[in-house]
Amino acid sequence: MVKKVKVGLLASGNGSNLQAIIDQSERGELPAEVVCVITNRSDAFALERARKHGITAIHLSHRDFSGREAYDAALVAALKGHGVELVVLAGFMRIITTVLLDAFPLAVLNIHPALLPSFPGLDAQQQALEYGVKVTGCTVHFVDEGTDTGPIIIQAVVPILPDDTVESLSLRIHHQEHKTYPEAIRLFAQGRLSVKGRRVMIAGGHASSDASLINPPV
Amino acid sequence: MVKKVKVGLLASGNGSNLQAIIDQSERGELPAEVVCVITNRSDAFALERARKHGITAIHLSHRDFSGREAYDAALVAALKGHGVELVVLAGFMRIITTVLLDAFPLAVLNIHPALLPSFPGLDAQQQALEYGVKVTGCTVHFVDEGTDTGPIIIQAVVPILPDDTVESLSLRIHHQEHKTYPEAIRLFAQGRLSVKGRRVMIAGGHASSDASLINPPV
Repeated sequence: MVKKVKVGLLASGNGSNLQAIIDQSERGELPAEVVCVITNRSDAFALERARKHGITAIHLSHRDFSGREAYDAALVAALKGHGVELVVLAGFMRIITTVLLDAFPLAVLNIHPALLPSFPGLDAQQQALEYGVKVTGCTVHFVDEGTDTGPIIIQAVVPILPDDTVESLSLRIHHQEHKTYPEAIRLFAQGRLSVKGRRVMIAGGHASSDASLINPPV
Repeated sequence: MVKKVKVGLLASGNGSNLQAIIDQSERGELPAEVVCVITNRSDAFALERARKHGITAIHLSHRDFSGREAYDAALVAALKGHGVELVVLAGFMRIITTVLLDAFPLAVLNIHPALLPSFPGLDAQQQALEYGVKVTGCTVHFVDEGTDTGPIIIQAVVPILPDDTVESLSLRIHHQEHKTYPEAIRLFAQGRLSVKGRRVMIAGGHASSDASLINPPV
């Protein structure tokens, strides 16, 4: 039995990934225990999700702090105070500073709704639609000081279909997010991740060498 | 029976994509006839491949022309002289100007060994390995004035495996190139491609909405 890793979730809004992680943890499918949920917005639905599951819900408004570093120091204090070992960003709309990153080296994860390095930043699904790519997806990565630039742990690909809107595409990507984000946490908890340069090495398990996805299909 | 489209292939080197296209055309699997192969290098193996199949092989050295436009004008003259309707770049290491593009509007194709817009330009496989992405692939696109920026027709995805080298990854991508490039020519020949903004609309056929490729697998 793998020891459960203590997870602190940071969110700004709805937190659907957060729900997927909480659900899998509760069902015992994930060697993780979500010990606190922190938001920077008092109206974030993520707070309600946490409370419903008896998880400590904390609102830390960035407006109460003099700057990013001061805010991140408060985050670190709250996270460390709850014994957090892994910080998971779930729609947390704040730029992270080295104050947080140095406190949790190679232990801050993010998920982005595109195949990075394509379409970093906001509105990734809309960027993909406007560019006209035929495939997109999501990327779970370690967070570094850049925007969506950290070492990549896992990527999932989906096709873009002719009638796709931002909503339909987001839904298709969400489905993959809810699988890949828990999986990345599992790999972390099992101690199977190591970083070599920019590459994340994963002990055991990779896609078949003849796996492919083609859109339109051949 | 679809009318065969007359294809002119431009190459600078080995031309393995060119071989796949010639082979499928000869076998009658592709509604296309390769009417000429043009290279800018006299030692391009592509010339030999063409001759072996009885296809007109032309060497046009860029050194014999005063600039890109003059060179492209010569290309256009040679292509039009052979009745070419579709220009297919197969490892052609020259920047294309509007002289060629205006002569063949929405009728110049290129293939790039990455999931554009990620890793444009040279050494795409090495770029992908160094970045540490978990998936990459190839992209067939209409050529515009930028480098690998034109509207995307088809993309194929493959995983990157832990032990991959540039060679092993290139081989895996080549396998998809040899499927997707002929398919793009087929779609063109069948009149199924139209461009709306940056998006290529394809009459009939797209990947299943629940298709996915995840690496590492979940």
